Amino acid sequence: MFNTIAGTIRGLAADMVEKAKSGHPGMPIGTAELAAVIYSETLKHDPAAPDWPDRDRFVLSAGHGSALLYALLHLTGYDMPMDELKRFRQFGAKTAGHPEYGAAPGIETTTGPLGQGLANAVGMALAERMLAARFNRPGHEIVDHYTYVLAGDGCLMEGVTAEASSLAGHLGLGKLIVFYDDNQISIEGSTNLAFTENVAERYAGYGWHIQRIDGHNPNQVLQAVNKAKTLTTKPSLIIAKTVIAKGTPLAGSHKTHGAPLGKENIAAMKEKLGLPADEFHVPEEVSQHFAGKQLEWTKQRALWEEKFRAWAEEYPDLQQEWERVTKNELPADLETALPDFENSPAATRNSGGEILNALATRLPELVGGSADLAPSTKTYLNEAGDVEAGDFSGRNLHFGVREHAMGAVLNGISLHGGFRAYGSTFLVFSDYMRPPIRLAALMNRPVIFVFTHDSFYVGEDGPTHQPVEHVEALRVIPGLHTMRPADTRETAGAWMAALKRTDGPTALVLTRQKLPLLPDSSVEKVTRGGYILREAEGENPDVIIFSSGSEVSLAMAAADLLAGSGKKTRVVSVPCRELLLNQEPDYVRSILGENTPRVAIEAGVGNGWYRLVGAGGLVISVEKFGESGPAEELAAHFGFTPEAVAEKIKKHCQWNT
Amino acid sequence: MFNTIAGTIRGLAADMVEKAKSGHPGMPIGTAELAAVIYSETLKHDPAAPDWPDRDRFVLSAGHGSALLYALLHLTGYDMPMDELKRFRQFGAKTAGHPEYGAAPGIETTTGPLGQGLANAVGMALAERMLAARFNRPGHEIVDHYTYVLAGDGCLMEGVTAEASSLAGHLGLGKLIVFYDDNQISIEGSTNLAFTENVAERYAGYGWHIQRIDGHNPNQVLQAVNKAKTLTTKPSLIIAKTVIAKGTPLAGSHKTHGAPLGKENIAAMKEKLGLPADEFHVPEEVSQHFAGKQLEWTKQRALWEEKFRAWAEEYPDLQQEWERVTKNELPADLETALPDFENSPAATRNSGGEILNALATRLPELVGGSADLAPSTKTYLNEAGDVEAGDFSGRNLHFGVREHAMGAVLNGISLHGGFRAYGSTFLVFSDYMRPPIRLAALMNRPVIFVFTHDSFYVGEDGPTHQPVEHVEALRVIPGLHTMRPADTRETAGAWMAALKRTDGPTALVLTRQKLPLLPDSSVEKVTRGGYILREAEGENPDVIIFSSGSEVSLAMAAADLLAGSGKKTRVVSVPCRELLLNQEPDYVRSILGENTPRVAIEAGVGNGWYRLVGAGGLVISVEKFGESGPAEELAAHFGFTPEAVAEKIKKHCQWNT
Repeated sequence: MFNTIAGTIRGLAADMVEKAKSGHPGMPIGTAELAAVIYSETLKHDPAAPDWPDRDRFVLSAGHGSALLYALLHLTGYDMPMDELKRFRQFGAKTAGHPEYGAAPGIETTTGPLGQGLANAVGMALAERMLAARFNRPGHEIVDHYTYVLAGDGCLMEGVTAEASSLAGHLGLGKLIVFYDDNQISIEGSTNLAFTENVAERYAGYGWHIQRIDGHNPNQVLQAVNKAKTLTTKPSLIIAKTVIAKGTPLAGSHKTHGAPLGKENIAAMKEKLGLPADEFHVPEEVSQHFAGKQLEWTKQRALWEEKFRAWAEEYPDLQQEWERVTKNELPADLETALPDFENSPAATRNSGGEILNALATRLPELVGGSADLAPSTKTYLNEAGDVEAGDFSGRNLHFGVREHAMGAVLNGISLHGGFRAYGSTFLVFSDYMRPPIRLAALMNRPVIFVFTHDSFYVGEDGPTHQPVEHVEALRVIPGLHTMRPADTRETAGAWMAALKRTDGPTALVLTRQKLPLLPDSSVEKVTRGGYILREAEGENPDVIIFSSGSEVSLAMAAADLLAGSGKKTRVVSVPCRELLLNQEPDYVRSILGENTPRVAIEAGVGNGWYRLVGAGGLVISVEKFGESGPAEELAAHFGFTPEAVAEKIKKHCQWNT
Repeated sequence: MFNTIAGTIRGLAADMVEKAKSGHPGMPIGTAELAAVIYSETLKHDPAAPDWPDRDRFVLSAGHGSALLYALLHLTGYDMPMDELKRFRQFGAKTAGHPEYGAAPGIETTTGPLGQGLANAVGMALAERMLAARFNRPGHEIVDHYTYVLAGDGCLMEGVTAEASSLAGHLGLGKLIVFYDDNQISIEGSTNLAFTENVAERYAGYGWHIQRIDGHNPNQVLQAVNKAKTLTTKPSLIIAKTVIAKGTPLAGSHKTHGAPLGKENIAAMKEKLGLPADEFHVPEEVSQHFAGKQLEWTKQRALWEEKFRAWAEEYPDLQQEWERVTKNELPADLETALPDFENSPAATRNSGGEILNALATRLPELVGGSADLAPSTKTYLNEAGDVEAGDFSGRNLHFGVREHAMGAVLNGISLHGGFRAYGSTFLVFSDYMRPPIRLAALMNRPVIFVFTHDSFYVGEDGPTHQPVEHVEALRVIPGLHTMRPADTRETAGAWMAALKRTDGPTALVLTRQKLPLLPDSSVEKVTRGGYILREAEGENPDVIIFSSGSEVSLAMAAADLLAGSGKKTRVVSVPCRELLLNQEPDYVRSILGENTPRVAIEAGVGNGWYRLVGAGGLVISVEKFGESGPAEELAAHFGFTPEAVAEKIKKHCQWNT
């Protein structure tokens, strides 16, 4: 039967790519037996209830093999009609070029950028253990599932995979099972060109259990999975030797990786496999096989529902909590947990840490950690323990110096469900983790990235550690909210906004240095993205200053100096420029004014501010790399003192006072 | 003697951090013996001639231990006066918080962002072998040096290190010798918190040779280096077990990682080590030791100079070439190598590939490759062979699916000297390699990054493969030139500009889809960053359109439509916005006009264009993620057709024609 299913998958994948005149047939055809076994025998899932919380997760990390996943979803009865297979890679189809989370049920994560899927899966497997530690009770194992991954050579070469795999081994994620499709082919040709390492030895070094199988032998696949399941303290790597595009005349060639096979090759393949020549053919016995499977799956899920009911009956409070966290709902009175705002200067990283800790007491679902910088980023949850191998009840994750994996693991935790996840590092190292930040935005996952040490004010660590372009580089990612609060109150507002957001990620950009508490700053107005913090007295202002973060207090000080020269200044705090620009036009206009000279101040590249201040506006910014030295000296050097700012504004406005 | 030198290093490092009240004393103190042996016995170098091309390279990948490097440079006689040690981490000092390439002789690369140094060193070791393959002749080994690295736990956790180490093993870089300072301490505490993998086993899997030593035992260090040198086909990892801050009362504690030790602890350390209590003390015997060493080093270099002269005499043409390439000089008539520009539509990735191949025939120093996408990015040098283990005479590098390592290895090749290096991948994956792009800019290295598939025009591969924010995200990196040429001629101009640039990196952003050859496009004017491609006939234009890349031909087509409505359009091609904004004001004004409505078109996020078009200007852009589908359908969906553009402009200008 597996061979018949595999043949069907081969035919569908080849036809999809051929019809689309675009796509990657080699991998789906080369892993057809593997996939047939996984989706028929291995996975605990119910295509009729794709959101079943305790389903096994399957991640196609080699996302270019999307045709494989779509064929599987169709054959097993997910909402993936044949018409969608025929619209593979067409505009608006569920069958996008790479699997898109949300496009169809059964797609657990967006893959395509290599390595991300495997690292997401580490997050999912971790979330499973953490959720089990919270909600399971003796005799009530309501959380108990596996996470499977199908990865290729490309995934295995990526650094993010290395980081995530090392972390998975460290945490002993025994229910993570990764199939490595070892077909020895990459886009440029044989993997001998660039990838000759001993993968098994490397993964043994990470603390994984290794098996080697013939990926075309269904029995070996089954046995390997069964063996992997017996190992509860080590992740499993199953190295499946396969032949890319096996069964076609081009088997073994890198030409099958990313281009249609051509009608003749497909015809030859179908003949060889004993398939009819029809396009998109599904044999009756395959349909019947999966119809039979659906009965089993329904039964399996019903058993779980029963288990869940028994648990809920015994632990009604737990169940209430379960409902809340799996729906990403916040407690109604969360604001009341916020600490008092002390009227003394505080670094927003410190305020942020206090706010996080205060909010976390009401949010047991809030988990996170740092890429080995928690003492600096202040994101450690003091009242909670660490997550570690064998004990997943803690809430603090130690990611190690693995920023990229941290981002992808956070995405995986969020995708799994049951948690709100955050991760922190220095802002300058957001560059190490841009791909998962982007994917969080693309997938609309409410992950929270905490980036501290946000400008040259970092000081002595110098230009390698001083972000200059990073705030702007984050702002341009569609769907990401980049928040740079100006003081403790705005930091609370930013944290609240990030937590209330359920449809996308937030980056919190915080300072190393102390900032004063601003007289009229606001928790609530942060959600507007920008607001008038200081209004010019009387009539119209002579100048309007826009700024964010540490430059807001600088703008206030400069405004004081200008007031001394008889000039009235409106100071606008812009904790989130993207949000401000999305407010109703009247609100934006009320802030921008008309024909008043406009100035923006930011300790970073400034080109994004011209949209607010106009081409003729003044942008006081930093357009080169930083320097190593005490922060105050650097502030003077870069012209970020009240005096220098006031002077520049006077000159710009041609006020000869 | 080594122990005395080590003690001196300990004292200097502790004093530097203490005086600066900032820095990382633990690592320098913990690796003092290791460093003493390397700088006294192991390194082939001459502090009096720090640019000696055949010197061994030493890379402090654990850049936070900068005090160690500065102490070594001072003791061995580089231009690193004691006064600079006393100004550690002060504004304008040579002794920046992290080692800055260019700040002082003897600093081979900028480190601090973890993992980059080790990956740079892979590039250096590769460059050494490649340069040897080109210039050495039987009996004339003028290129023959080692590359040493000192890396810590943090470096070993980073994915970029994993990628680069796998590549180094694949290429059999036998003259790369990495010391792993295995002190089991990271910022958050013991490495047991996050890093329990078996590093030796992992590196064995990469194909490295592994040794384990006591890092505090100078004899073991010496023996390990000697052993490593006998292995010519495998990189060496020497795992040196050390105790962080050894010799201080805080030895072994993570508290010594990133904060001053405090006066009492330093006093206790000095007493224990038998050092006088004075700050910044260098015993006479240490000074004398290195004075003696300098005699040896001078002699060693003289021998090389002699060897070089003999070689130059025998191979004068080779020597001429050597002089040219080591100075980054281009042949005078390089432009003449450019191919004819065919008046037929061509994807700029294809034009780029032809131009690259044509220029490469005159530039044997031009080497590069792709992160497993050469068939798509078209950067393969057809007339040159591959670089592979045992044969480094080729010019094509197969980086594998390792974008991050690719960037860092390119930086290393460039830092080594003797080559111009380029690397290619899809633009969307520039996110995987931002840290080395940034470092190339920070170090003013003329590395060329080729990024193809530059917008939603990628088509069927969908949003994971369609850059939206990436062009703008590159433009904000200080010192990087981001060039998005509009046709074949501009692509030639962009390649020429990138090659002529010797003080910083360039990103070439190229299309997957075909673009027409524009009638008045220019090779030369690309260096202006922007120029008028089509001038409105007669008097002043009614509207000015700015655009780059594929949107320039779109702007031209829209201008034709507007002409049909009697409106005169100036079309400005902006292949490099940063360069345009840096032209003399008169030139910029001549392009911008006065009071003429301005429009920008770009198939990506548009906020950077308001600086040119003004706050009230029209920016036709893409502010959300892409879609999977044929490119033409997406163009219609996103409003990137001549008709849609012309309509938007008419509406914006309130032309009711």
